[in-house]
Amino acid sequence: MTKIRYQDKFIDMNANIDPDDNIICNFYIEADDVHKAANVAAGESSIGTWTEIHTMKKRIERLAAKVFYIDGNNIKIAYPTDMFVDNSIPQLLSDVAGNILGMKEVSNLRLNSIELPDRYVDTFKGPAFGMEGVRKLIGTDKGRRPHVGTIVKPKIGLDPKETAKVAYEAYYGGCDFVKDDENLTDQRFCPFEERIIKVLDSMDLAREETGERKAYAPNVTGPKMIEHSQFVKDHGGNCAMIDIIAAGYYALQELRDADLGLFLHGHRAMHAAITRNPLHGISMGVIALLSRLGGIDQLHIGTVIGKMEGGREEVLFNKSELERPLSSMKATFAVCSGGLHPGHVPKLLDILGNDIVIQAGGGIHGHPDGTIEGARALRQAVDAKMKGIDATEYAKDHPQLKKALELWGTT
Amino acid sequence: MTKIRYQDKFIDMNANIDPDDNIICNFYIEADDVHKAANVAAGESSIGTWTEIHTMKKRIERLAAKVFYIDGNNIKIAYPTDMFVDNSIPQLLSDVAGNILGMKEVSNLRLNSIELPDRYVDTFKGPAFGMEGVRKLIGTDKGRRPHVGTIVKPKIGLDPKETAKVAYEAYYGGCDFVKDDENLTDQRFCPFEERIIKVLDSMDLAREETGERKAYAPNVTGPKMIEHSQFVKDHGGNCAMIDIIAAGYYALQELRDADLGLFLHGHRAMHAAITRNPLHGISMGVIALLSRLGGIDQLHIGTVIGKMEGGREEVLFNKSELERPLSSMKATFAVCSGGLHPGHVPKLLDILGNDIVIQAGGGIHGHPDGTIEGARALRQAVDAKMKGIDATEYAKDHPQLKKALELWGTT
Repeated sequence: MTKIRYQDKFIDMNANIDPDDNIICNFYIEADDVHKAANVAAGESSIGTWTEIHTMKKRIERLAAKVFYIDGNNIKIAYPTDMFVDNSIPQLLSDVAGNILGMKEVSNLRLNSIELPDRYVDTFKGPAFGMEGVRKLIGTDKGRRPHVGTIVKPKIGLDPKETAKVAYEAYYGGCDFVKDDENLTDQRFCPFEERIIKVLDSMDLAREETGERKAYAPNVTGPKMIEHSQFVKDHGGNCAMIDIIAAGYYALQELRDADLGLFLHGHRAMHAAITRNPLHGISMGVIALLSRLGGIDQLHIGTVIGKMEGGREEVLFNKSELERPLSSMKATFAVCSGGLHPGHVPKLLDILGNDIVIQAGGGIHGHPDGTIEGARALRQAVDAKMKGIDATEYAKDHPQLKKALELWGTT
Repeated sequence: MTKIRYQDKFIDMNANIDPDDNIICNFYIEADDVHKAANVAAGESSIGTWTEIHTMKKRIERLAAKVFYIDGNNIKIAYPTDMFVDNSIPQLLSDVAGNILGMKEVSNLRLNSIELPDRYVDTFKGPAFGMEGVRKLIGTDKGRRPHVGTIVKPKIGLDPKETAKVAYEAYYGGCDFVKDDENLTDQRFCPFEERIIKVLDSMDLAREETGERKAYAPNVTGPKMIEHSQFVKDHGGNCAMIDIIAAGYYALQELRDADLGLFLHGHRAMHAAITRNPLHGISMGVIALLSRLGGIDQLHIGTVIGKMEGGREEVLFNKSELERPLSSMKATFAVCSGGLHPGHVPKLLDILGNDIVIQAGGGIHGHPDGTIEGARALRQAVDAKMKGIDATEYAKDHPQLKKALELWGTT
């Protein structure tokens, strides 16, 4: 019974799409009729609806999205930049990954990648520090070795003093970076403010003792995000961590707008609700790109070889979205985290290069001789690779690495 | 090579779980070894990690999550309430729908429903108005007919004056409620402030002319959310709309905390990235429950019979999550929107009852005689049902409804 007025109106395979004036989205699509579904998707995400309406104006057609490429299940849709609001990731998502993912006309639809014109990119703040800023802060802008970090484990349950002790040991053993886990924020067993004071004391002490600069990423995710971040800044912290997906992009943008002089570490907990199905949802590459626009300085991108899913090609794409030229926006530092240990390091660096933060939780605190030696072992694995020496060879006169490789093996 | 220290530690099929002290999550799980994967999931989302660690303390075991039910692919995990932070939806998500959705041990994992103890529920604000508050505002707390609303269409492109004209006609024809579409916020073609002033003027005029109370939901989604909501309040508005998923739960909670005296309308654009795959992700019922906790007064739940996917059972579950007893928290008003027209009304109300907001965009503005008559037709369809009269019968002396049914048919 229903009429689709705009049947085919949103498809133009000969369209001359100006990349300076369109946001171009690459979708994977499954539908009984891909051509028809692509048309409805472009309409639903711009000016169309399911029936002929009397309130349409001719001039509005300039805002129509256009399907300009269909190859099997892959389509490209161009959205005129004027459809979008400056500096709003939520509005971008509501447009290009909103209702269309739930349309009956498609059985699966996945936003795989986005190309953005510079004039749109320029409306976003992007990273305040970026990879280079974080490297300068730690002092690795020369030499450019990978950063080495840890997550305090167990994920939850330690009190502030215990947390600070674990952090101290990790820093002392060679970690550049210590972070809270994604589900630790401000529980009664470990109140935020007390934890921050104690861990920052650990960081300062380790800095004095080792002569190395360090960073701590307290998890500020939640309704007290800004208050907590301000507290971190007021107490000499240099970083804040946010669970971007669980909190949402509004939160990331608000934290970036607060401009507190903290670099922002992005955990991606819950991303797999959106990204894991290869046929539907939104790719992690898009999540990475949007997080960079929103101002994240470091972002988890997967490990290829750790405990989380995510293959080599996908992780490399995530990384490239953090680093590729994007108007004058800074690059975001890629973080590999999840089930990593020293034995993974050579292969990880072969795959991803040296511009990464290698984080190990169990892979440090699970070392046979504890956290200090675990941190040493991970740092030694990185040193070996930077010197071009095989890890097993290097382990011969580096007992911490030796024990780690004996326990966990090499990949 | 790796050892899982907590193998089986997180499973206790005989556990005596106190529902007053645990958050109970119902998951669908697919894995090579469901038992093993369930164990790892409970560990990963509480105190476990992939290897034996030296920083664990005996007392922390009280925070362990427990798998206490496994039946085929359905499992239940109990999370001690002490794991969680008061009043933080992002922290809840990072726990129970975070890393575990991306674990290699599972091929699919879906959080289907959550049971919350009252003492945790009570830390959240919940809806300020709720269904009853919105009904009182409109004046339907007696009689209790469904509300009738519209989305201004086309979705984007009209200027403020044109938007206000469409809104006026919809109100005048009988709509209780007019809303912006999910991708209209503050574009250059329709600046927010000018639009709000003009549409609120339309609302006031229609209120005077019809004697009926009305509401307008301007889309405040985006970095200027609070500023825009304050503007709405300052200019006599009574509602604000947020794209909850695209913006994130932090945004919803911040808007609720601002307590501006506006009721909050929740659009769910992008939910299908998370909810659509029946085997993986998070169910719309969980999204609904969390949105209610976060303070949404009205929420889109699907239509069963419109343009978006979502079957009868699912939509009924979404609605029940908005309305079921939940400590002293108010119920959220369910909204059906997406491809609806007057011909759908009888069946829609048979399925969902009268406690719903029926929204039609194309189903009003696409009426052969335009928006005013389209709004009349939708209102007439509701009136007929409330009087127990068959729509086709009622249409005989209600020409607006007659034309609508002729164009779009009945379901």
